Amino acid sequence: MQNIEILGLVAAALTTSAFVPQVYKAWKHKSTKDISLTMYLVFLMGLILWFIYGVYQESLSIMLANGITGVLAFIVIILKLKHR
Amino acid sequence: MQNIEILGLVAAALTTSAFVPQVYKAWKHKSTKDISLTMYLVFLMGLILWFIYGVYQESLSIMLANGITGVLAFIVIILKLKHR
Repeated sequence: MQNIEILGLVAAALTTSAFVPQVYKAWKHKSTKDISLTMYLVFLMGLILWFIYGVYQESLSIMLANGITGVLAFIVIILKLKHR
Repeated sequence: MQNIEILGLVAAALTTSAFVPQVYKAWKHKSTKDISLTMYLVFLMGLILWFIYGVYQESLSIMLANGITGVLAFIVIILKLKHR
């Protein structure tokens, strides 16, 4: 595998896993007042488009990264609606 | 321009602009307690790697999207540290 692809995979792993601590914090403290619902809704729409982009480009890494981030963003939205 | 590239640009515009409402909310309410600092630090590292990836791939859209998102994420970090 080329170095540049490794760089892309590490970048994807970071920008995807970054949402885990936010999900954990919102779930643990049941407090989401400061989190912007608009951000996560717009972000989720973008992730869905990136996922479709990945399908057309037949790029597993784009599908995986945006698919997982999409699930995490969706969970934050659920927690936000639950613990306004 | 191919439809797939337009899809990518719209996806990039959404996942980039999504952070503007979060910056605005944090700046306006001066309250960031529920925002995960760990998320934004890890996310910023990922964005920096994506930016470097874009430079090597000579992809202006990857550089632009991740560069702007990186600036927005950096502002959220500053607001988070300022208004713990």
